[in-house]
Amino acid sequence: MTDYSKFYSDRVRPMKGSAIREMFKRMADPEIISLAGGNPASELFPGEELAEIAKEILINNPTGALQYGTTDGLPAMRECAAARAKKVNSISDNDQVLIMTGANQGIDLTAKALINKGDKIIVESPSFIGSLNAFRTYECELVGVKVDSDGMNMEELEKALEENDGVKMIYTIPTFQNPTGTTMPAAKRKKLIELANKYDVIILEDNPYGDLRFKGEEVPTLKSLDTEGRVIYAGSFSKILSPGMRLGYVIGAPEILGKIEILKQVNDVHTPVLTQMMCVEFMKKYNIDEYIERNRELYGKKCAVMLASMQKYFPTGKVKWTVPDGGIFLWCECPGLEDITPVVDRALEKKVAIVPGSNFAVDNKEPSNMFRLNYSSATPEKIEEGIKRLGEALAEIL
Amino acid sequence: MTDYSKFYSDRVRPMKGSAIREMFKRMADPEIISLAGGNPASELFPGEELAEIAKEILINNPTGALQYGTTDGLPAMRECAAARAKKVNSISDNDQVLIMTGANQGIDLTAKALINKGDKIIVESPSFIGSLNAFRTYECELVGVKVDSDGMNMEELEKALEENDGVKMIYTIPTFQNPTGTTMPAAKRKKLIELANKYDVIILEDNPYGDLRFKGEEVPTLKSLDTEGRVIYAGSFSKILSPGMRLGYVIGAPEILGKIEILKQVNDVHTPVLTQMMCVEFMKKYNIDEYIERNRELYGKKCAVMLASMQKYFPTGKVKWTVPDGGIFLWCECPGLEDITPVVDRALEKKVAIVPGSNFAVDNKEPSNMFRLNYSSATPEKIEEGIKRLGEALAEIL
Repeated sequence: MTDYSKFYSDRVRPMKGSAIREMFKRMADPEIISLAGGNPASELFPGEELAEIAKEILINNPTGALQYGTTDGLPAMRECAAARAKKVNSISDNDQVLIMTGANQGIDLTAKALINKGDKIIVESPSFIGSLNAFRTYECELVGVKVDSDGMNMEELEKALEENDGVKMIYTIPTFQNPTGTTMPAAKRKKLIELANKYDVIILEDNPYGDLRFKGEEVPTLKSLDTEGRVIYAGSFSKILSPGMRLGYVIGAPEILGKIEILKQVNDVHTPVLTQMMCVEFMKKYNIDEYIERNRELYGKKCAVMLASMQKYFPTGKVKWTVPDGGIFLWCECPGLEDITPVVDRALEKKVAIVPGSNFAVDNKEPSNMFRLNYSSATPEKIEEGIKRLGEALAEIL
Repeated sequence: MTDYSKFYSDRVRPMKGSAIREMFKRMADPEIISLAGGNPASELFPGEELAEIAKEILINNPTGALQYGTTDGLPAMRECAAARAKKVNSISDNDQVLIMTGANQGIDLTAKALINKGDKIIVESPSFIGSLNAFRTYECELVGVKVDSDGMNMEELEKALEENDGVKMIYTIPTFQNPTGTTMPAAKRKKLIELANKYDVIILEDNPYGDLRFKGEEVPTLKSLDTEGRVIYAGSFSKILSPGMRLGYVIGAPEILGKIEILKQVNDVHTPVLTQMMCVEFMKKYNIDEYIERNRELYGKKCAVMLASMQKYFPTGKVKWTVPDGGIFLWCECPGLEDITPVVDRALEKKVAIVPGSNFAVDNKEPSNMFRLNYSSATPEKIEEGIKRLGEALAEIL
């Protein structure tokens, strides 16, 4: 038996995972300066604090940490998630909280709970590849709405809702969007809620970066503006504590979350207990907002270094970019160019990794003249050196 | 907006999670003796060893433990899984290993990679509720094959393969099956492989209990008998180290595992890194087989206590049960009875929790006169007391 393809489900038949795996492989090469991934800064990870916490938990409560847990998460962990959501008015009295093994699981299982083959999901285009690929596994149709410098374009969104039957859900990262780094202002968010109410669709608000603002004023979450219980809010501890611990959550109407909980039960039974307990103890013993504040400052600095380096090293007038108020990404476009691939390849020869825009597009076979840059992961020195080399690659190709 | 049901996908519309959640709630009441769950014995958890290990990892390599990992798992963790599989000849040179957030994730995503709506999966009936419910989320048809005292009935299996088009997969727990505790002998396993070859279907072999033999001779795994690369082998550290850590794996042909890896990427990105590193270090520093040996002895003792108590306290001649050679479950039938529900309810009044057989059936709406007992979790004293109370409940109803 060598031909396994006849056994595949339709959903996985067209899938290729190589782009993502290649990206991870690039990051593993120590000589390469990676501006490609979405890693938070590791220099601030509270390793010593968590070491002490992990030890104490396993000494004092080994059964609690090592035995099976419940699917919805530890009560204390659900309170931690609720506390984070409360800070941005993103939980109401009736809402349920489910702890997820990373917010991505919440996004995957929300789609699984709502989407039949042929249903439509409206997404920002470009958007987070992990979510788009999760949606694709439910054989839905993705309807892309372009992203302006202030987030999803509302005219196009209204048109998409008008012209498409069978839209179940709008998926959006309204704050420091991945990949563009853009943020939707309050007025646009109110409009989005209005449209969702009018066309009777669910909103899945993905907010992993919301805590990482280093400039400008806070903007209310979509969840906080929701009066009809149609927003499912996905939050994460990946960018404010540790991504390797895989701790995220979804918050929303108990009816829908009850379905998601059943899907989680048959998926991974529950999120590992030790990491949940470690997060709970960290938030008890330390002020997580002070820790986040240090991350914000660091990301503000790193972003400024990247922007200054781009100004200095990118060929003048040939590249446009977004200027984020927070988060970990910015987005570049080369207006004269049709396809960024030769730049990406040339940059890789110079040992700099970036992600071509096509990865984030709804139609990912179309060539793209855009690329994403991450500024949270590399040191300021590596960022400047990486941008310098990327500037050379751009100058050689453009 | 109060009616969310119109948004649900077809796959979750018929689902009810309450049975499982009720079971967990029962176990949370400290007054109740639970013979219901599938918890391994917590008295042997190596809490102190893991406390020291966790601390050292987080002090010496905080970035490794807290930063994003790769979807297929840490290389050292994949080696640990391969080493476990090698002990039972369940990995070949060409096979790929994927670390899963519990084996259940491997089972869920294997089905997601293979099963289209309307495809058929042959399963033991009764079988593990978590797997059956995972399969149900892909809108497949489950074809049940009865379980004899020596596992899946081969005549019925052949008939099921003959009579059903569109069978993609046979799912089996051949060793210390959940819920029956039965084990398929070698001859039957060879027959099963032959049938899978003849009818050209995939076998998903779920082996979470295989290490827990306390009586009788080892039997070869299906994977070790597979010559055509059609067995996907799911293993777990839940019953030999800690279920709360959620560490499992799947092993099989790289083509299919590549698809499963993509589905894992969009599901939880990767299994938490710290727990993987802890497992690796535990297996480096300690002899996990010695640790497993202590578990085997304990389960052998607990099983003997349960069987002796059943002999002593169950109404004579009214209950039949299986006698397992390992694992954590045994299975009871009340031949004269139509529906076990009144016994389950009466037992609960007496503060003993058991799981009615209908939960494990392919057609879970049919009444069942069977129930599952777990002997790994409670202490020997609680087991005897629990069986005594259950015997009273049985005597009152039968």
